[in-house]
Amino acid sequence: MRHFQAFLNAHPELKTAFQHVSLGIEREGHRIKTNGDLARSPHPSAVDGSSDNKYIQRDFAESQLELVTPPVYSEEGVYHWLEAIHQVALRSLAEDELLWPSSMPPVLPEDDAIHVADLDKVEDVAYREYLVKAYGKKVQMISGIHFNFGFDQDLLEIFYQADDQGYASIKEFTTAFYLRLARNFLRYEWLIVYLFGATPSAHDSFYNRAEDIFPHPIRSIRNSHLGYVNKKDVTYTYDNLPDYVEELEANVKDGRLIAEKEFYSNVRLRGAKQARGLLETGIKYLEFRLFDIQAEEAYGIGLDDIRFMKYFILYLVWADMDCQMPDVYQGYEMKLEVAEEETLQPTAYQEEGLNLLEGMTEMVESLGVSDTLNPLIDSMRQRLLDPSLTPSGRLVTNNPTVDTWLANNLDHAKANKEAALAHPYLLGGFEDMELSTQILLADAIQQGLWIDILDRQDQLIALTYRDHTEYVKNANITGKDSLISYYLMGNKVVTKDLLQAAGFTVPKSQTFNSLDAAQAAAGLFVDKKVVVKPKSTNMGVGISIFKEGASQEGLREAFDIAFGYDDTVLVEEFAEGTEYRFFVLDSKCLAVLLRVPAFVKGDGQHSIRELVDLKNQDPKRGENHRTPLEKISLDRSAALVLEAYGYDFDSVPEADEIVPLRENSNISTGGDSIDVTDDMDPSYLELASQMAQALDVKVTGLDLMIRDRHQAAQADNYALIEANYNPMMMMHIYPAQGKGRRISKDLLAYLFPEKIFKD
Amino acid sequence: MRHFQAFLNAHPELKTAFQHVSLGIEREGHRIKTNGDLARSPHPSAVDGSSDNKYIQRDFAESQLELVTPPVYSEEGVYHWLEAIHQVALRSLAEDELLWPSSMPPVLPEDDAIHVADLDKVEDVAYREYLVKAYGKKVQMISGIHFNFGFDQDLLEIFYQADDQGYASIKEFTTAFYLRLARNFLRYEWLIVYLFGATPSAHDSFYNRAEDIFPHPIRSIRNSHLGYVNKKDVTYTYDNLPDYVEELEANVKDGRLIAEKEFYSNVRLRGAKQARGLLETGIKYLEFRLFDIQAEEAYGIGLDDIRFMKYFILYLVWADMDCQMPDVYQGYEMKLEVAEEETLQPTAYQEEGLNLLEGMTEMVESLGVSDTLNPLIDSMRQRLLDPSLTPSGRLVTNNPTVDTWLANNLDHAKANKEAALAHPYLLGGFEDMELSTQILLADAIQQGLWIDILDRQDQLIALTYRDHTEYVKNANITGKDSLISYYLMGNKVVTKDLLQAAGFTVPKSQTFNSLDAAQAAAGLFVDKKVVVKPKSTNMGVGISIFKEGASQEGLREAFDIAFGYDDTVLVEEFAEGTEYRFFVLDSKCLAVLLRVPAFVKGDGQHSIRELVDLKNQDPKRGENHRTPLEKISLDRSAALVLEAYGYDFDSVPEADEIVPLRENSNISTGGDSIDVTDDMDPSYLELASQMAQALDVKVTGLDLMIRDRHQAAQADNYALIEANYNPMMMMHIYPAQGKGRRISKDLLAYLFPEKIFKD
Repeated sequence: MRHFQAFLNAHPELKTAFQHVSLGIEREGHRIKTNGDLARSPHPSAVDGSSDNKYIQRDFAESQLELVTPPVYSEEGVYHWLEAIHQVALRSLAEDELLWPSSMPPVLPEDDAIHVADLDKVEDVAYREYLVKAYGKKVQMISGIHFNFGFDQDLLEIFYQADDQGYASIKEFTTAFYLRLARNFLRYEWLIVYLFGATPSAHDSFYNRAEDIFPHPIRSIRNSHLGYVNKKDVTYTYDNLPDYVEELEANVKDGRLIAEKEFYSNVRLRGAKQARGLLETGIKYLEFRLFDIQAEEAYGIGLDDIRFMKYFILYLVWADMDCQMPDVYQGYEMKLEVAEEETLQPTAYQEEGLNLLEGMTEMVESLGVSDTLNPLIDSMRQRLLDPSLTPSGRLVTNNPTVDTWLANNLDHAKANKEAALAHPYLLGGFEDMELSTQILLADAIQQGLWIDILDRQDQLIALTYRDHTEYVKNANITGKDSLISYYLMGNKVVTKDLLQAAGFTVPKSQTFNSLDAAQAAAGLFVDKKVVVKPKSTNMGVGISIFKEGASQEGLREAFDIAFGYDDTVLVEEFAEGTEYRFFVLDSKCLAVLLRVPAFVKGDGQHSIRELVDLKNQDPKRGENHRTPLEKISLDRSAALVLEAYGYDFDSVPEADEIVPLRENSNISTGGDSIDVTDDMDPSYLELASQMAQALDVKVTGLDLMIRDRHQAAQADNYALIEANYNPMMMMHIYPAQGKGRRISKDLLAYLFPEKIFKD
Repeated sequence: MRHFQAFLNAHPELKTAFQHVSLGIEREGHRIKTNGDLARSPHPSAVDGSSDNKYIQRDFAESQLELVTPPVYSEEGVYHWLEAIHQVALRSLAEDELLWPSSMPPVLPEDDAIHVADLDKVEDVAYREYLVKAYGKKVQMISGIHFNFGFDQDLLEIFYQADDQGYASIKEFTTAFYLRLARNFLRYEWLIVYLFGATPSAHDSFYNRAEDIFPHPIRSIRNSHLGYVNKKDVTYTYDNLPDYVEELEANVKDGRLIAEKEFYSNVRLRGAKQARGLLETGIKYLEFRLFDIQAEEAYGIGLDDIRFMKYFILYLVWADMDCQMPDVYQGYEMKLEVAEEETLQPTAYQEEGLNLLEGMTEMVESLGVSDTLNPLIDSMRQRLLDPSLTPSGRLVTNNPTVDTWLANNLDHAKANKEAALAHPYLLGGFEDMELSTQILLADAIQQGLWIDILDRQDQLIALTYRDHTEYVKNANITGKDSLISYYLMGNKVVTKDLLQAAGFTVPKSQTFNSLDAAQAAAGLFVDKKVVVKPKSTNMGVGISIFKEGASQEGLREAFDIAFGYDDTVLVEEFAEGTEYRFFVLDSKCLAVLLRVPAFVKGDGQHSIRELVDLKNQDPKRGENHRTPLEKISLDRSAALVLEAYGYDFDSVPEADEIVPLRENSNISTGGDSIDVTDDMDPSYLELASQMAQALDVKVTGLDLMIRDRHQAAQADNYALIEANYNPMMMMHIYPAQGKGRRISKDLLAYLFPEKIFKD
C-alpha cells in the first residue's frame, strides 16, 4: 500500500488505531556530585545494578544512568513512566549526588578518571573498551534520549489485507512498512534536530583538541560531526532488509564496525538481537535516537515533546512519501548541516520545515485531534521562524557563558532531586493508585522487576523477574496466600476459634444471629467490659467498645449499630492493655506499631488551634489516604475531647503538655503511628509470627492488646483482638515517629526468593 | 456445691448456659435384605469402613451399622446430624439392603452365619471374639441408642468458683459433679426404661434357650436380665473416681472382665480411653446407654425423645439430689424390674415417676422453657398413667404376633430408605445450606471425614482426616487456590490476556472505561457479531449478545446496561459455535456439560402447557436453586418464543417434536443440562485442563464456544469466553440427561490425597 492517507480517510473508524502506537523512551544522564563534579562513585547501591534491571541501567560510563520506560500506548502513559523511573532513580542516589540535566556532559576529568561502566557481562565491558579506543572516552559521555515507536499490529494487518503490492506475508509487509518509515525519517530528521537540538556548546573539557571547538554556538553538538557518527568507511542501506543485514554484517566482518550496535544511525530496526534475526522475526518497531535532553524538563523531555515526536512520525506515514536511499544520504547531510548551523540563525531548510508542519496540521485535522495538536504544531512553527525560541536558542540566550550554563544545570539538577524527595511516598504518574501500590511499584522499579499494570482501578499488577511472574493486588494480596484464608480471616468468629484452638489467647465472645436475640441477652453484659462488633467488618466499622462496663441502653444502641453491618454480631470480652498492630510476612514479624489518638504537644506559646495547624504542615499529613498520615481536624469530636480537659481550641497548653484531640487511635482521624518494633519484648514478635502460622497466612496485620510490652508474653497478659487480611503497609513505612520499615521491599524479596535484593 | 437449683435461681443469667449442653447420639442397627433376612454382605463399599470413619461405623457384627453424630449444642442440631448420617448410610447401602428399625434383631440365622465385624484393628476383632465366648453371639446382636452428654465448661467453672466444698481444682469439682449425676441417673434410670422401652418381645431365633422366652411381652428385653448385663461377680462403685478406677481395673485383673469396655453400665464416664486416664483428664462427659430404638422414628429416636432425655438429665442436677451407692444398687434392681414388667400393666414405681415429672415441670417453668417442654412432659405423664401409650405398649397393641412385628419393621425400613433416596441431592438437616455444600457434606460423611460447620450462612466448613484439616467455602473454594487467582479470574480482561499470552484462542475485545467513550465508538461495531459485557460480573448478568450483527441502537442500549454493572465494559468478538461448560479440578477436566434452553418434547397428545407440567414433575426440578434443575415457567418469555413458532401454550406439538421455550440456556430459567463428557473429542478436555494450568487455578469452570465438538480442537474452531471461579457443581452431579459426575467426591480426594477413597 502506498496511500495510507486515502485509505484512512476512506476508513475513518481506523483513525484511532492509527494513533494507537506503542511508545517507549530511554533517557541517559550522568550522576554528578552536588558541587557539579562528575560522580566517581559506583552505580547506586539501592538499585539493582544487574543487567536484569529493566528500568534503571548504565550506559557507557559508570556514572551514566540509562532510564528506560516500558512500551506504553499513550503519550501521557510513557511520560508517567518516565516520571516514575526518574523519581525512583533520584531517590536512589547517594545524598550528595544529582542527575545532570543535559546531553553534553558536565566538566569532565582526565580520561583516566572516567570509569567505564562496571557491568556484569564481560562482553558489555569489552565492547565499551573498544569504543574508548575507537572514539575516545569523551564523545561516549554525551547523553541523549531514544524513542521507541511501534504501530498497532491489528492495523498493520488491515493495511496488509488491503495492500495490492503483493507482499507474501504480514511480516514482509510490516518490514517494508517500517523500512519506508525509517527512510522517510532519515530524510527529514533534520527538523527534529532543529526543533529540539539542545546542545549548542560544551565545556572545554569535552573536546579532545582545541581545534574541534566550534567558533560559535550551534544547534546540536550531539548531532554534529563531533557527536555519534560512524567512521566514513561504514556503509549501509535501508532499501530492503536482506541488503540491510548483509551490509551491516559486512561492516563487522571487515572490521569497520566491532559490532552491529556500533552502527550509529538515528534509526535502528528493532525486533531481534542481531540484524540477521530480523529476517526471521521481521521488524517489530523502530528506535529513533537523535533527541537531545531538554534541560528545563524535569525528566529530560516534556509531554508535548513526546506528543510532537509521535505525530511527526505518524505524519511520515500519513504523507504517503516513499523516500529512497539517495534521499536518506541527502537527509544525513542535511541533519549534519542543520546541527552545525549557528544557533540564532534561521535554518537553510526553513521552508521545507514549514511545509512539513503544514502537512502535520492537515493530518491532525483529519484525525480529529487538532484541539490538542494545533497549538503544539504552532509553537514549533514559531521555533522554525524564530531560532531563539528553539531549546538551543534559549540556552544560548539564557547562558552568556559556559559557566552560567554549568551553574544553571546544577540548579536544575538540585531542583529536580528536591522535587523527587518532597513526597517520597508518592510515585509520580501513578498517584491515582493506592499509596501502598505506589510504594510497591517504586520498589519494583528500583529492583528492576518488570511491571505490568493489569488493572489500574483494581490495583492489580504483575511483576516479573526473568521467567517468574507474580501477581499482586492492593499491594499485598498475592499468590502466596490461599483463597480460603481470605474467607477465614474475614470471619471474626472463625479466626478466633482457630487461634484459640491453636493455644493463643483471644477474648471470649458470644455470637448472636439476630438483633432480637442480642437485645434479649443484653442483660448478661450490663456492667461488663465488652466490645460489640459485627462478624465481618474491618477497620473499626460498626464496633462499640465499653471499657468501663456497658449500660443496658449503651448495649441496645451498640447492637443496633453492629447489626447494621452484618447478620451476625459478637459480644467480646474487652481485652485490657494497649493495642498494637503487628505486620507479619512469611512467618516473620517485620514491624510493630503503636497507634496514638490525635494529639498536640504544648509549647507554652501557641494555642491548640495553632499547634494543630503546625502539626498539619508535616508533608506526611494529608487527606483521604493520599498521604501516610491524615491531617487533624478541629471538629466537634475534638472539641468534646478538649472539653473534658477544660480546654477549647484557643487554649494555650503548657510546654511539653500532651493534649489529646480524639478518643480513638485511628490514623484516619489524625492519629499518630509510632514504630515500636525494637522497643518491645521480642516474645511478642515471635507470638505474632506463630499466630500467622496458625492461621496459615503469609501476609497479615494482627491487632493485639498488650498489658506491658516490655514484659514477656504469656497467656494472661495479651489477647489477639483482630487478624486483618491485606493489612495497611504505609503506616509502617512512614510512621509519625520511630523507624520506618520498608516492608514493601521485604514483600518483593519474599515473592522473588531467587533474586538478590541489595541494601 | 449442693444446691444448683437455688444458685441458678439466684443467677438467672446462667439459666441459658445450664441448658447449653453438648449432645451426641450413637445409633446401632442391622443391615437387612429387602426380604427381611439379616444381610450377610460386607460393610457397604461406598462407605469408608476404616476406623477413621467418624460417622458410619460397625458395632459387633459385620451387618451392624453404628451411626455416630458429633457433639452438638442443641436438640435440633443433633437430630439434624442424625438425619444426615442416616440419609448417607441409607444411600450407601446396596440396592437390596435396608436398615432394621428395632433394637431387637430380625430373624437371626445360626450363630455360624453371624459374621463378627471385619474391623481393621486386630484387637477390636479379638475383643469381639471374646464376647462371643462370654455371652454368645445373639445378645450382642441387640442394637440401641447411646446418648453423650456434657455440660458447658464455663458454667462448671462458675459452679466451681461458687462452691464451698473445698475441691482442689476445677477438674476435681467436675469429676465429682459428673459422678453425682451418674449416681442420680443410675438411681432413676428405670423411668427412661419405662417411657422409652421398645423391645417387648423378640423372634424365637434370638433366644439361646426356649426357657429364656418371657411368658408375656415386657417393657424392654434389652434392659432385662437377657440384655446387656454383666456377670454377677463384676463389682463397681461410682462413689469417687480413684475407687471407680481401681474397682474396674481389679475386675479386669481378676478376669471378671476381659476389658474395661466390657463393663455394661448404663452410664459410662468419658474423657479418656482407659479409666485410669480419667484420673489425669477428669471426666469430660457422660455416656447414657439404655435407650431403645423407636421403630416409628425414621432415625431411631425422635426430636422430642432427645429433648426429654436432655431435660431429664438436667433435672437430675437441678433437683439437688445426691444419691449414694446403695441408691445406685437399688436403682439397678428397679431398672431390671421395670424392664421385665408386663407391658400393659402399670409400673410399680408410678408414683415416683409422677413425682419426677412434677419436678421436671417445676424446673422447665423456672428455666423459662415450659412452652416447649410442658406438652412433652405431659405426654410422658400420660405414658406413666397408661402403659399402652408407651413404645412397648404401642408395639404390643399394634403387633398381635411377632410376625406382624417383623412385617411392620420391614415396612418401616423400606419407607425409611425410600425417603432417603427421594431427594438424593439434599442432605437432611443441612437443607438451609447451598446444594453443592450439602453434596460435599454428604460425601464427607460417607468418607468419614470429620466435619466442622464453621459458619452455616457463609457455607464455611472444615474437614479433617486424621491430623489434616482443609477449609472449604461454597463447596469448592479451598486452600489450594491462591487468593490472587480469585481477583485475576474476577477480571475478564486480565483472564483473557493471560490465556491469550499462553497461546489459547480468546475472542478479541476492546475495553471502554466510560459510557461516553463506548457510545462514541459504537459505530465501529455496527453490523458486527459482538458481545457487550461488564468487566467483572458473572452468570450472564448485564451481557448483551449480537449473534446477527449489532445495530447502533442495540449497542447504545447494551452499553447502558453493561455500565450499570461495572465501570469497565468490554466489546468482544462473538465466538461462533455452541457453548459448553468444562469443570476442571487439579488440571483434570472431570465433566463437560451442554446447556440447552428450556424445551418440551411433543407426544402428539399433550398440550405444551401439559408437557411443561409433566416435565416439572421431575423431582430434580424445583425453585430458587434448591434442586439441581429449575422448573420451567410459562411466562411472557416462553410465550414470545412460542409465538415465533406459531404456537401458544395450548398447542399440541407432534410426537418427538422439540419445542423451545427460551432463548437462553441458563439452568435457572428451566434449561436442561446434558453431560457430554464422553461424547466429544478428548482434545477439548485436554485444552480445558491446560487453560486451568495457564490460569494457575485448581478449581474452575470454563465456558468454551466450540464449532463441532467431535472435531479435534485447533486454534480456529474454539474460543474461551469465560473462566469462572467457584463453579457450580450440582449441574454436573445431577444433569438432566447423561451421566452424573460425582465431582464433589473427586474434590475431597484431591484435598486429601493421602486418604484412600473407595468406589
